[in-house]
Amino acid sequence: MVILDGKKISQEIKKEISETVKSIIASGKPAPHLAAILAGNDGASETYVGHKEKDCHEVGFRSTVLRFPDSVSRNELLSEISRLNDSDDITGLIVQLPLPKHISEKEIIEAINPAKDVDGFHPVNVGKMVTGLSAFVSATPYGIIELMKRYAIETAGKNCVVLGRSNIVGRPMANLLSQKAYPGDCTVTVCHSRTKNIREICVNADIIVAALGVPEFLTADMVKEGAVVIDVGITRVKADNKNGFRLVGDVKFDTVSEKASFITPVPGGVGPMTRVALLKNTLKAYEAKKQ
Amino acid sequence: MVILDGKKISQEIKKEISETVKSIIASGKPAPHLAAILAGNDGASETYVGHKEKDCHEVGFRSTVLRFPDSVSRNELLSEISRLNDSDDITGLIVQLPLPKHISEKEIIEAINPAKDVDGFHPVNVGKMVTGLSAFVSATPYGIIELMKRYAIETAGKNCVVLGRSNIVGRPMANLLSQKAYPGDCTVTVCHSRTKNIREICVNADIIVAALGVPEFLTADMVKEGAVVIDVGITRVKADNKNGFRLVGDVKFDTVSEKASFITPVPGGVGPMTRVALLKNTLKAYEAKKQ
Repeated sequence: MVILDGKKISQEIKKEISETVKSIIASGKPAPHLAAILAGNDGASETYVGHKEKDCHEVGFRSTVLRFPDSVSRNELLSEISRLNDSDDITGLIVQLPLPKHISEKEIIEAINPAKDVDGFHPVNVGKMVTGLSAFVSATPYGIIELMKRYAIETAGKNCVVLGRSNIVGRPMANLLSQKAYPGDCTVTVCHSRTKNIREICVNADIIVAALGVPEFLTADMVKEGAVVIDVGITRVKADNKNGFRLVGDVKFDTVSEKASFITPVPGGVGPMTRVALLKNTLKAYEAKKQ
Repeated sequence: MVILDGKKISQEIKKEISETVKSIIASGKPAPHLAAILAGNDGASETYVGHKEKDCHEVGFRSTVLRFPDSVSRNELLSEISRLNDSDDITGLIVQLPLPKHISEKEIIEAINPAKDVDGFHPVNVGKMVTGLSAFVSATPYGIIELMKRYAIETAGKNCVVLGRSNIVGRPMANLLSQKAYPGDCTVTVCHSRTKNIREICVNADIIVAALGVPEFLTADMVKEGAVVIDVGITRVKADNKNGFRLVGDVKFDTVSEKASFITPVPGGVGPMTRVALLKNTLKAYEAKKQ
Protein backbone atom coordinates (compact mmCIF):
# COMPACT_ATOMS: atom_id res chain seq x y z
CA MET A 1 0.00 0.00 0.00
CA VAL A 2 1.27 3.42 -1.00
CA ILE A 3 0.29 6.60 0.81
CA LEU A 4 -0.56 9.36 -1.65
CA ASP A 5 1.50 11.99 0.11
CA GLY A 6 -0.23 15.27 -0.76
CA LYS A 7 1.99 17.17 1.61
CA LYS A 8 5.19 16.04 -0.10
CA ILE A 9 3.84 16.45 -3.64
CA SER A 10 2.44 19.89 -2.87
CA GLN A 11 5.87 20.93 -1.61
CA GLU A 12 7.47 19.69 -4.83
CA ILE A 13 4.93 21.66 -6.87
CA LYS A 14 5.48 24.78 -4.79
CA LYS A 15 9.18 24.44 -5.50
CA GLU A 16 8.47 24.22 -9.24
CA ILE A 17 6.26 27.29 -9.05
CA SER A 18 8.89 29.24 -7.06
CA GLU A 19 11.47 28.48 -9.73
CA THR A 20 9.14 29.81 -12.41
CA VAL A 21 8.43 32.93 -10.37
CA LYS A 22 12.14 33.50 -9.87
CA SER A 23 12.71 33.40 -13.61
CA ILE A 24 9.75 35.75 -14.18
CA ILE A 25 11.24 38.25 -11.76
CA ALA A 26 14.73 37.77 -13.18
CA SER A 27 13.36 38.75 -16.60
CA GLY A 28 12.23 42.06 -15.09
CA LYS A 29 8.51 41.28 -14.97
CA PRO A 30 6.26 41.60 -11.92
CA ALA A 31 5.36 38.44 -10.03
CA PRO A 32 1.83 36.97 -10.36
CA HIS A 33 -0.62 38.71 -8.07
CA LEU A 34 -3.61 37.03 -6.41
CA ALA A 35 -6.41 39.20 -5.04
CA ALA A 36 -8.89 37.77 -2.53
CA ILE A 37 -12.13 39.40 -1.49
CA LEU A 38 -13.22 38.59 2.06
CA ALA A 39 -16.59 39.86 3.26
CA GLY A 40 -17.80 39.50 6.84
CA ASN A 41 -15.86 37.79 9.60
CA ASP A 42 -16.42 34.07 9.32
CA GLY A 43 -13.65 32.36 11.30
CA ALA A 44 -13.10 29.53 8.81
CA SER A 45 -12.97 32.00 5.91
CA GLU A 46 -10.32 34.03 7.78
CA THR A 47 -8.26 30.88 8.18
CA TYR A 48 -8.58 29.86 4.52
CA VAL A 49 -7.66 33.31 3.25
CA GLY A 50 -4.73 33.37 5.68
CA HIS A 51 -3.50 30.06 4.20
CA LYS A 52 -3.81 31.44 0.70
CA GLU A 53 -1.74 34.52 1.58
CA LYS A 54 0.90 32.33 3.19
CA ASP A 55 1.04 30.02 0.16
CA CYS A 56 1.39 32.97 -2.21
CA HIS A 57 4.19 34.40 -0.13
CA GLU A 58 5.95 31.04 -0.10
CA VAL A 59 6.19 30.80 -3.89
CA GLY A 60 6.91 34.48 -4.48
CA PHE A 61 3.45 35.58 -5.68
CA ARG A 62 2.12 38.91 -4.56
CA SER A 63 -1.20 38.72 -2.72
CA THR A 64 -3.78 41.25 -1.62
CA VAL A 65 -6.75 40.66 0.65
CA LEU A 66 -9.61 43.11 0.29
CA ARG A 67 -11.73 43.06 3.43
CA PHE A 68 -15.33 44.21 3.62
CA PRO A 69 -17.69 44.30 6.60
CA ASP A 70 -20.61 41.91 6.86
CA SER A 71 -22.84 44.84 5.87
CA VAL A 72 -21.13 45.36 2.50
CA SER A 73 -23.56 46.09 -0.33
CA ARG A 74 -23.91 44.19 -3.58
CA ASN A 75 -22.86 47.30 -5.48
CA GLU A 76 -19.69 47.80 -3.45
CA LEU A 77 -18.61 44.22 -4.15
CA LEU A 78 -19.52 44.43 -7.84
CA SER A 79 -17.61 47.66 -8.31
CA GLU A 80 -14.56 46.24 -6.54
CA ILE A 81 -14.69 43.15 -8.75
CA SER A 82 -15.00 45.32 -11.82
CA ARG A 83 -11.92 47.30 -10.76
CA LEU A 84 -9.91 44.12 -10.16
CA ASN A 85 -11.14 42.59 -13.43
CA ASP A 86 -9.78 45.59 -15.31
CA SER A 87 -6.54 45.97 -13.37
CA ASP A 88 -3.48 44.88 -15.32
CA ASP A 89 -1.71 44.34 -12.02
CA ILE A 90 -4.08 41.57 -10.84
CA THR A 91 -3.49 38.06 -12.18
CA GLY A 92 -6.17 36.10 -10.36
CA LEU A 93 -9.22 37.07 -8.36
CA ILE A 94 -11.07 34.96 -5.81
CA VAL A 95 -14.06 35.71 -3.64
CA GLN A 96 -14.01 33.75 -0.40
CA LEU A 97 -17.32 31.94 0.17
CA PRO A 98 -19.70 32.01 1.95
CA LEU A 99 -20.71 35.62 1.37
CA PRO A 100 -23.02 37.48 3.77
CA LYS A 101 -26.56 36.18 3.32
CA HIS A 102 -27.97 39.28 1.61
CA ILE A 103 -25.50 38.93 -1.30
CA SER A 104 -26.15 36.55 -4.22
CA GLU A 105 -23.06 34.35 -4.57
CA LYS A 106 -24.18 33.40 -8.07
CA GLU A 107 -24.24 37.03 -9.20
CA ILE A 108 -20.87 37.82 -7.62
CA ILE A 109 -19.15 34.77 -9.14
CA GLU A 110 -20.57 35.53 -12.57
CA ALA A 111 -19.16 39.06 -12.31
CA ILE A 112 -15.56 37.78 -12.14
CA ASN A 113 -13.62 37.93 -15.40
CA PRO A 114 -13.37 34.23 -16.40
CA ALA A 115 -9.72 34.78 -17.37
CA LYS A 116 -8.97 35.71 -13.72
CA ASP A 117 -11.35 33.17 -12.14
CA VAL A 118 -8.62 30.99 -10.62
CA ASP A 119 -11.18 29.31 -8.32
CA GLY A 120 -12.82 27.93 -11.48
CA PHE A 121 -16.33 28.70 -10.19
CA HIS A 122 -17.54 30.86 -13.09
CA PRO A 123 -20.02 28.99 -15.34
CA VAL A 124 -17.74 29.61 -18.35
CA ASN A 125 -14.93 27.72 -16.65
CA VAL A 126 -17.26 24.95 -15.47
CA GLY A 127 -18.69 24.60 -18.99
CA LYS A 128 -15.24 24.46 -20.57
CA MET A 129 -13.98 21.95 -18.02
CA VAL A 130 -17.01 19.70 -18.60
CA THR A 131 -16.63 19.79 -22.39
CA GLY A 132 -12.90 19.12 -22.26
CA LEU A 133 -11.70 22.60 -23.20
CA SER A 134 -8.87 24.42 -21.46
CA ALA A 135 -10.28 25.94 -18.27
CA PHE A 136 -9.55 26.79 -14.67
CA VAL A 137 -10.55 23.65 -12.79
CA SER A 138 -11.59 24.26 -9.19
CA ALA A 139 -8.90 23.59 -6.63
CA THR A 140 -9.91 20.29 -5.03
CA PRO A 141 -10.57 18.32 -8.24
CA TYR A 142 -7.52 19.88 -9.86
CA GLY A 143 -5.38 18.92 -6.87
CA ILE A 144 -6.66 15.33 -6.95
CA ILE A 145 -6.03 15.00 -10.69
CA GLU A 146 -2.50 16.30 -10.18
CA LEU A 147 -1.89 13.89 -7.29
CA MET A 148 -3.05 10.92 -9.40
CA LYS A 149 -0.79 12.07 -12.22
CA ARG A 150 2.29 12.40 -10.00
CA TYR A 151 1.81 8.85 -8.69
CA ALA A 152 1.12 7.60 -12.26
CA ILE A 153 -2.12 5.97 -11.15
CA GLU A 154 -3.66 3.94 -13.96
CA THR A 155 -7.13 5.18 -14.79
CA ALA A 156 -8.09 4.14 -18.34
CA GLY A 157 -10.95 1.63 -18.33
CA LYS A 158 -11.09 1.57 -14.52
CA ASN A 159 -14.37 1.61 -12.64
CA CYS A 160 -14.43 4.77 -10.58
CA VAL A 161 -17.01 5.67 -7.97
CA VAL A 162 -17.43 9.27 -6.87
CA LEU A 163 -19.26 9.60 -3.55
CA GLY A 164 -20.95 13.01 -3.53
CA ARG A 165 -22.33 15.29 -6.24
CA SER A 166 -21.34 18.75 -5.00
CA ASN A 167 -20.55 21.40 -7.57
CA ILE A 168 -17.08 21.95 -6.15
CA VAL A 169 -15.88 18.34 -5.79
CA GLY A 170 -18.07 15.38 -6.77
CA ARG A 171 -19.50 16.70 -10.00
CA PRO A 172 -16.25 18.07 -11.48
CA MET A 173 -14.36 14.89 -10.43
CA ALA A 174 -16.94 12.74 -12.25
CA ASN A 175 -16.74 14.88 -15.37
CA LEU A 176 -12.95 14.95 -15.39
CA LEU A 177 -12.40 11.26 -14.75
CA SER A 178 -14.84 10.23 -17.50
CA GLN A 179 -13.10 12.34 -20.13
CA LYS A 180 -10.84 11.03 -22.87
CA ALA A 181 -7.68 12.11 -21.10
CA TYR A 182 -5.13 11.06 -18.52
CA PRO A 183 -6.04 10.89 -15.69
CA GLY A 184 -9.45 9.91 -17.06
CA ASP A 185 -11.10 7.40 -19.40
CA CYS A 186 -12.71 5.85 -16.31
CA THR A 187 -16.20 4.39 -16.21
CA VAL A 188 -17.57 6.75 -13.58
CA THR A 189 -20.53 6.25 -11.23
CA VAL A 190 -21.73 9.16 -9.11
CA CYS A 191 -23.36 8.17 -5.81
CA HIS A 192 -25.21 10.49 -3.43
CA SER A 193 -27.79 10.61 -0.66
CA ARG A 194 -30.44 9.00 -2.86
CA THR A 195 -28.26 6.07 -3.95
CA LYS A 196 -29.70 2.78 -2.73
CA ASN A 197 -26.95 0.19 -3.15
CA ILE A 198 -23.88 2.27 -2.31
CA ARG A 199 -22.01 -0.59 -0.61
CA GLU A 200 -22.40 -2.87 -3.60
CA ILE A 201 -21.32 -0.12 -6.01
CA CYS A 202 -18.21 0.75 -3.97
CA VAL A 203 -17.06 -2.82 -3.60
CA ASN A 204 -16.77 -3.14 -7.39
CA ALA A 205 -14.76 0.07 -7.79
CA ASP A 206 -11.11 0.27 -8.80
CA ILE A 207 -10.98 3.92 -7.73
CA ILE A 208 -13.10 5.61 -5.06
CA VAL A 209 -13.25 9.35 -4.50
CA ALA A 210 -15.04 9.96 -1.20
CA ALA A 211 -16.50 13.46 -0.93
CA LEU A 212 -19.63 13.13 1.17
CA GLY A 213 -18.44 14.91 4.30
CA VAL A 214 -19.51 11.99 6.47
CA PRO A 215 -16.71 10.96 8.88
CA GLU A 216 -15.42 7.42 8.30
CA PHE A 217 -18.30 6.60 5.94
CA LEU A 218 -16.22 4.29 3.74
CA THR A 219 -15.32 1.15 5.65
CA ALA A 220 -13.13 -1.81 4.67
CA ASP A 221 -16.09 -4.04 3.77
CA MET A 222 -17.02 -1.53 1.03
CA VAL A 223 -13.60 -1.60 -0.60
CA LYS A 224 -12.14 -4.07 -3.07
CA GLU A 225 -8.63 -5.41 -2.50
CA GLY A 226 -6.21 -3.15 -4.38
CA ALA A 227 -8.55 -0.18 -4.87
CA VAL A 228 -7.27 3.39 -5.07
CA VAL A 229 -8.92 5.50 -2.37
CA ILE A 230 -9.03 9.30 -2.43
CA ASP A 231 -10.44 10.90 0.71
CA VAL A 232 -11.78 14.43 0.30
CA GLY A 233 -13.61 14.61 3.62
CA ILE A 234 -12.19 16.44 6.60
CA THR A 235 -14.27 16.75 9.75
CA ARG A 236 -13.34 17.71 13.30
CA VAL A 237 -14.31 14.96 15.70
CA LYS A 238 -14.06 15.32 19.50
CA ALA A 239 -11.03 13.55 20.87
CA ASP A 240 -9.25 13.11 24.15
CA ASN A 241 -6.08 14.96 23.19
CA LYS A 242 -4.60 18.41 23.79
CA ASN A 243 -6.62 20.01 20.93
CA GLY A 244 -9.80 18.35 22.06
CA PHE A 245 -10.44 17.15 18.50
CA ARG A 246 -8.92 15.16 15.66
CA LEU A 247 -9.40 15.49 11.90
CA VAL A 248 -11.25 12.62 10.32
CA GLY A 249 -11.84 11.90 6.63
CA ASP A 250 -14.73 10.16 4.87
CA VAL A 251 -12.65 6.96 4.91
CA LYS A 252 -11.98 4.69 7.89
CA PHE A 253 -8.28 4.90 7.27
CA ASP A 254 -6.85 2.22 9.57
CA THR A 255 -8.78 -0.70 8.04
CA VAL A 256 -9.32 0.60 4.48
CA SER A 257 -5.59 1.27 4.10
CA GLU A 258 -4.97 -2.45 4.65
CA LYS A 259 -6.89 -3.23 1.44
CA ALA A 260 -6.08 -0.22 -0.75
CA SER A 261 -3.24 -0.08 -3.26
CA PHE A 262 -3.03 3.73 -2.93
CA ILE A 263 -4.73 5.90 -0.32
CA THR A 264 -4.68 9.55 0.74
CA PRO A 265 -4.25 10.30 4.44
CA VAL A 266 -6.30 12.91 6.32
CA PRO A 267 -4.75 15.36 6.96
CA GLY A 268 -1.88 15.55 4.46
CA GLY A 269 -3.60 14.13 1.37
CA VAL A 270 -6.13 16.11 -0.64
CA GLY A 271 -5.94 19.22 1.58
CA PRO A 272 -2.42 20.39 0.64
CA MET A 273 -3.09 19.49 -3.01
CA THR A 274 -6.16 21.76 -2.95
CA ARG A 275 -4.04 24.60 -1.62
CA VAL A 276 -1.34 24.21 -4.22
CA ALA A 277 -3.89 23.89 -7.05
CA LEU A 278 -4.93 27.50 -6.49
CA LEU A 279 -1.31 28.53 -6.97
CA LYS A 280 -1.08 26.49 -10.17
CA ASN A 281 -4.23 28.15 -11.50
CA THR A 282 -2.83 31.58 -10.68
CA LEU A 283 0.37 30.80 -12.56
CA LYS A 284 -1.71 29.50 -15.46
CA ALA A 285 -3.68 32.77 -15.53
CA TYR A 286 -0.39 34.67 -15.56
CA GLU A 287 1.01 32.64 -18.43
CA ALA A 288 -2.21 32.85 -20.47
CA LYS A 289 -2.14 36.63 -20.14
CA LYS A 290 1.42 36.86 -21.44
CA GLN A 291 0.41 35.46 -24.82
CA MET B 1 -44.44 -2.33 -21.99
CA VAL B 2 -45.18 1.28 -22.86
CA ILE B 3 -43.82 2.97 -25.98
CA LEU B 4 -42.49 6.44 -25.16
CA ASP B 5 -44.20 8.14 -28.06
CA GLY B 6 -41.99 11.12 -28.85
CA LYS B 7 -44.01 11.92 -31.93
CA LYS B 8 -47.26 12.24 -30.02
CA ILE B 9 -45.74 14.14 -27.08
CA SER B 10 -43.88 16.52 -29.40
CA GLN B 11 -47.18 17.31 -31.14
CA GLU B 12 -48.80 18.06 -27.78
CA ILE B 13 -45.93 20.36 -26.86
CA LYS B 14 -46.09 22.11 -30.24
CA LYS B 15 -49.79 22.70 -29.60
CA GLU B 16 -48.99 24.23 -26.21
CA ILE B 17 -46.35 26.47 -27.79
CA SER B 18 -48.74 27.54 -30.57
CA GLU B 19 -51.31 28.59 -27.99
CA THR B 20 -48.71 30.71 -26.21
CA VAL B 21 -47.62 32.28 -29.49
CA LYS B 22 -51.23 33.07 -30.35
CA SER B 23 -51.67 34.91 -27.06
CA ILE B 24 -48.37 36.76 -27.61
CA ILE B 25 -49.57 37.94 -31.01
CA ALA B 26 -53.04 38.75 -29.66
CA SER B 27 -51.41 41.04 -27.13
CA GLY B 28 -49.89 42.99 -30.00
CA LYS B 29 -46.34 41.72 -29.60
CA PRO B 30 -44.17 40.18 -32.32
CA ALA B 31 -43.78 36.38 -32.37
CA PRO B 32 -40.51 34.78 -31.22
CA HIS B 33 -37.91 34.80 -33.97
CA LEU B 34 -35.26 32.10 -34.48
CA ALA B 35 -32.23 32.89 -36.63
CA ALA B 36 -30.08 30.08 -38.02
CA ILE B 37 -26.67 30.50 -39.59
CA LEU B 38 -25.85 27.90 -42.25
CA ALA B 39 -22.38 27.93 -43.78
CA GLY B 40 -21.39 25.68 -46.66
CA ASN B 41 -23.65 23.16 -48.31
CA ASP B 42 -23.61 20.01 -46.24
CA GLY B 43 -26.68 17.96 -47.21
CA ALA B 44 -27.55 16.85 -43.68
CA SER B 45 -27.21 20.41 -42.37
CA GLU B 46 -29.60 21.62 -45.10
CA THR B 47 -32.12 19.01 -43.98
CA TYR B 48 -31.81 19.87 -40.28
CA VAL B 49 -32.17 23.59 -40.90
CA GLY B 50 -35.15 22.87 -43.15
CA HIS B 51 -36.79 20.94 -40.30
CA LYS B 52 -36.13 23.79 -37.91
CA GLU B 53 -37.77 26.30 -40.28
CA LYS B 54 -40.78 24.02 -40.71
CA ASP B 55 -41.13 23.54 -36.94
CA CYS B 56 -40.95 27.30 -36.33
CA HIS B 57 -43.60 27.89 -38.97
CA GLU B 58 -45.84 25.24 -37.41
CA VAL B 59 -45.95 26.93 -33.99
CA GLY B 60 -46.12 30.50 -35.32
CA PHE B 61 -42.50 31.52 -34.67
CA ARG B 62 -40.73 33.64 -37.24
CA SER B 63 -37.55 32.10 -38.63
CA THR B 64 -34.67 33.36 -40.72
CA VAL B 65 -31.90 31.32 -42.29
CA LEU B 66 -28.70 33.19 -43.06
CA ARG B 67 -26.74 31.29 -45.69
CA PHE B 68 -23.02 31.66 -46.29
CA PRO B 69 -20.78 29.95 -48.82
CA ASP B 70 -18.24 27.34 -47.76
CA SER B 71 -15.59 30.03 -48.24
CA VAL B 72 -17.08 32.36 -45.62
CA SER B 73 -14.47 34.03 -43.41
CA ARG B 74 -14.28 33.94 -39.66
CA ASN B 75 -14.79 37.69 -39.56
CA GLU B 76 -17.92 37.59 -41.67
CA LEU B 77 -19.48 35.01 -39.36
CA LEU B 78 -18.42 36.86 -36.23
CA SER B 79 -19.82 40.15 -37.48
CA GLU B 80 -23.11 38.50 -38.45
CA ILE B 81 -23.33 36.91 -35.00
CA SER B 82 -22.61 40.24 -33.39
CA ARG B 83 -25.41 41.87 -35.41
CA LEU B 84 -27.87 39.12 -34.44
CA ASN B 85 -26.75 39.24 -30.79
CA ASP B 86 -27.59 42.92 -30.69
CA SER B 87 -30.81 42.78 -32.69
CA ASP B 88 -33.93 43.25 -30.58
CA ASP B 89 -35.88 41.42 -33.25
CA ILE B 90 -33.98 38.12 -32.85
CA THR B 91 -35.02 35.84 -29.96
CA GLY B 92 -32.73 32.87 -30.49
CA LEU B 93 -29.64 32.29 -32.59
CA ILE B 94 -28.21 28.96 -33.69
CA VAL B 95 -25.23 28.11 -35.85
CA GLN B 96 -25.68 24.83 -37.71
CA LEU B 97 -22.70 22.52 -37.19
CA PRO B 98 -20.40 21.36 -38.66
CA LEU B 99 -18.85 24.61 -39.89
CA PRO B 100 -16.39 24.71 -42.80
CA LYS B 101 -13.05 23.28 -41.64
CA HIS B 102 -11.16 26.59 -41.61
CA ILE B 103 -13.53 28.06 -39.00
CA SER B 104 -13.12 27.36 -35.26
CA GLU B 105 -16.49 26.09 -34.00
CA LYS B 106 -15.39 26.83 -30.45
CA GLU B 107 -14.77 30.48 -31.23
CA ILE B 108 -18.04 30.87 -33.13
CA ILE B 109 -20.12 29.25 -30.39
CA GLU B 110 -18.48 31.38 -27.71
CA ALA B 111 -19.39 34.48 -29.72
CA ILE B 112 -23.13 33.82 -29.38
CA ASN B 113 -24.91 35.84 -26.70
CA PRO B 114 -25.66 33.18 -24.03
CA ALA B 115 -29.15 34.66 -23.59
CA LYS B 116 -29.89 33.78 -27.25
CA ASP B 117 -27.96 30.47 -27.29
CA VAL B 118 -31.04 28.25 -27.67
CA ASP B 119 -28.84 25.30 -28.74
CA GLY B 120 -27.30 25.42 -25.24
CA PHE B 121 -23.77 24.94 -26.61
CA HIS B 122 -22.14 28.06 -25.10
CA PRO B 123 -19.88 27.19 -22.11
CA VAL B 124 -21.93 29.53 -19.89
CA ASN B 125 -25.05 27.47 -20.55
CA VAL B 126 -23.20 24.19 -20.14
CA GLY B 127 -21.70 25.40 -16.85
CA LYS B 128 -25.06 26.56 -15.52
CA MET B 129 -26.77 23.33 -16.57
CA VAL B 130 -24.08 21.25 -14.83
CA THR B 131 -24.29 23.24 -11.60
CA GLY B 132 -28.10 23.15 -11.53
CA LEU B 133 -28.72 26.78 -12.47
CA SER B 134 -31.33 27.90 -14.99
CA ALA B 135 -29.83 27.43 -18.47
CA PHE B 136 -30.57 26.49 -22.04
CA VAL B 137 -30.11 22.73 -22.09
CA SER B 138 -29.12 21.33 -25.48
CA ALA B 139 -31.98 19.89 -27.48
CA THR B 140 -31.52 16.12 -27.21
CA PRO B 141 -31.04 15.92 -23.42
CA TYR B 142 -33.77 18.49 -22.90
CA GLY B 143 -36.14 16.50 -25.12
CA ILE B 144 -35.38 13.27 -23.24
CA ILE B 145 -35.92 14.92 -19.84
CA GLU B 146 -39.25 16.30 -21.07
CA LEU B 147 -40.31 12.90 -22.42
CA MET B 148 -39.51 11.22 -19.09
CA LYS B 149 -41.48 13.91 -17.29
CA ARG B 150 -44.56 13.56 -19.49
CA TYR B 151 -44.63 9.80 -18.87
CA ALA B 152 -44.00 10.38 -15.14
CA ILE B 153 -41.08 7.95 -15.17
CA GLU B 154 -39.74 7.36 -11.66
CA THR B 155 -36.10 8.34 -11.41
CA ALA B 156 -35.15 9.05 -7.75
CA GLY B 157 -32.69 6.47 -6.44
CA LYS B 158 -32.71 4.53 -9.71
CA ASN B 159 -29.54 3.16 -11.24
CA CYS B 160 -29.10 4.85 -14.58
CA VAL B 161 -26.52 3.96 -17.20
CA VAL B 162 -25.63 6.45 -19.92
CA LEU B 163 -23.89 4.86 -22.89
CA GLY B 164 -21.74 7.53 -24.51
CA ARG B 165 -19.94 10.61 -23.23
CA SER B 166 -20.46 13.11 -26.04
CA ASN B 167 -20.76 16.78 -25.13
CA ILE B 168 -24.17 17.06 -26.76
CA VAL B 169 -25.87 13.96 -25.37
CA GLY B 170 -24.12 11.57 -22.98
CA ARG B 171 -22.38 14.06 -20.75
CA PRO B 172 -25.33 16.45 -20.26
CA MET B 173 -27.70 13.49 -19.69
CA ALA B 174 -25.40 12.17 -16.96
CA ASN B 175 -25.17 15.55 -15.29
CA LEU B 176 -28.91 16.18 -15.46
CA LEU B 177 -30.01 12.76 -14.22
CA SER B 178 -27.64 12.87 -11.23
CA GLN B 179 -28.96 16.24 -10.05
CA LYS B 180 -31.26 16.78 -7.10
CA ALA B 181 -34.32 17.30 -9.31
CA TYR B 182 -37.07 15.50 -11.14
CA PRO B 183 -36.29 13.83 -13.49
CA GLY B 184 -33.03 13.18 -11.66
CA ASP B 185 -31.68 11.92 -8.33
CA CYS B 186 -30.42 8.84 -10.20
CA THR B 187 -27.20 7.04 -9.43
CA VAL B 188 -25.59 7.57 -12.83
CA THR B 189 -22.84 5.55 -14.51
CA VAL B 190 -21.31 6.84 -17.75
CA CYS B 191 -19.97 4.14 -20.07
CA HIS B 192 -17.91 4.68 -23.21
CA SER B 193 -15.43 3.06 -25.58
CA ARG B 194 -12.96 2.37 -22.75
CA THR B 195 -15.49 0.69 -20.45
CA LYS B 196 -14.60 -2.93 -19.85
CA ASN B 197 -17.68 -4.56 -18.32
CA ILE B 198 -20.44 -2.76 -20.18
CA ARG B 199 -22.78 -5.75 -20.33
CA GLU B 200 -22.60 -6.31 -16.58
CA ILE B 201 -23.18 -2.60 -15.89
CA CYS B 202 -26.19 -2.40 -18.20
CA VAL B 203 -27.87 -5.49 -16.81
CA ASN B 204 -28.05 -3.86 -13.38
CA ALA B 205 -29.56 -0.62 -14.69
CA ASP B 206 -33.10 0.58 -14.05
CA ILE B 207 -32.75 3.22 -16.77
CA ILE B 208 -30.50 3.05 -19.85
CA VAL B 209 -29.83 5.98 -22.17
CA ALA B 210 -28.10 4.62 -25.28
CA ALA B 211 -26.17 7.28 -27.17
CA LEU B 212 -23.20 5.50 -28.71
CA GLY B 213 -24.21 5.68 -32.37
CA VAL B 214 -23.66 1.94 -32.78
CA PRO B 215 -26.67 0.29 -34.48
CA GLU B 216 -28.45 -2.27 -32.28
CA PHE B 217 -25.64 -2.25 -29.70
CA LEU B 218 -27.94 -2.86 -26.74
CA THR B 219 -29.36 -6.36 -26.91
CA ALA B 220 -31.93 -8.11 -24.69
CA ASP B 221 -29.30 -10.02 -22.69
CA MET B 222 -27.90 -6.65 -21.51
CA VAL B 223 -31.24 -5.40 -20.17
CA LYS B 224 -32.95 -6.09 -16.87
CA GLU B 225 -36.64 -7.03 -16.85
CA GLY B 226 -38.63 -3.80 -16.40
CA ALA B 227 -35.87 -1.35 -17.35
CA VAL B 228 -36.60 2.01 -18.98
CA VAL B 229 -34.75 2.25 -22.30
CA ILE B 230 -34.10 5.53 -24.11
CA ASP B 231 -32.59 5.17 -27.58
CA VAL B 232 -30.74 8.21 -28.90
CA GLY B 233 -29.04 6.44 -31.82
CA ILE B 234 -30.28 6.79 -35.35
CA THR B 235 -28.30 5.20 -38.16
CA ARG B 236 -29.21 4.42 -41.77
CA VAL B 237 -28.75 0.75 -42.51
CA LYS B 238 -29.10 -0.75 -45.98
CA ALA B 239 -32.40 -2.51 -46.44
CA ASP B 240 -34.33 -4.24 -49.16
CA ASN B 241 -37.17 -1.71 -49.35
CA LYS B 242 -38.13 1.17 -51.62
CA ASN B 243 -35.81 3.65 -49.85
CA GLY B 244 -32.93 1.19 -49.89
CA PHE B 245 -32.37 1.81 -46.16
CA ARG B 246 -34.03 1.72 -42.77
CA LEU B 247 -33.39 3.76 -39.63
CA VAL B 248 -31.91 1.79 -36.75
CA GLY B 249 -31.29 2.91 -33.18
CA ASP B 250 -28.62 1.86 -30.67
CA VAL B 251 -31.12 -0.60 -29.22
CA LYS B 252 -32.23 -3.93 -30.72
CA PHE B 253 -35.84 -2.89 -30.43
CA ASP B 254 -37.74 -6.11 -31.15
CA THR B 255 -36.20 -8.14 -28.33
CA VAL B 256 -35.32 -5.37 -25.84
CA SER B 257 -38.90 -4.06 -25.99
CA GLU B 258 -40.10 -7.42 -24.67
CA LYS B 259 -38.19 -6.82 -21.42
CA ALA B 260 -38.45 -3.03 -21.03
CA SER B 261 -41.15 -1.27 -19.00
CA PHE B 262 -40.83 1.86 -21.17
CA ILE B 263 -38.92 2.20 -24.44
CA THR B 264 -38.48 4.83 -27.16
CA PRO B 265 -38.93 3.72 -30.77
CA VAL B 266 -36.59 4.76 -33.61
CA PRO B 267 -37.79 6.76 -35.42
CA GLY B 268 -40.50 8.56 -33.47
CA GLY B 269 -38.92 8.60 -30.02
CA VAL B 270 -36.04 10.93 -29.12
CA GLY B 271 -35.87 12.52 -32.62
CA PRO B 272 -39.13 14.51 -32.49
CA MET B 273 -38.46 15.44 -28.85
CA THR B 274 -35.09 16.91 -29.90
CA ARG B 275 -36.82 19.01 -32.53
CA VAL B 276 -39.46 20.34 -30.17
CA ALA B 277 -36.88 21.08 -27.45
CA LEU B 278 -35.34 23.76 -29.68
CA LEU B 279 -38.76 25.42 -29.90
CA LYS B 280 -39.17 25.26 -26.13
CA ASN B 281 -35.76 26.88 -25.67
CA THR B 282 -36.67 29.63 -28.12
CA LEU B 283 -39.89 30.35 -26.23
CA LYS B 284 -37.90 30.35 -22.98
CA ALA B 285 -35.49 32.92 -24.46
CA TYR B 286 -38.46 35.04 -25.49
CA GLU B 287 -40.03 34.91 -22.04
CA ALA B 288 -36.74 35.63 -20.26
CA LYS B 289 -36.29 38.72 -22.40
CA LYS B 290 -39.74 40.07 -21.51
CA GLN B 291 -38.78 40.33 -17.84
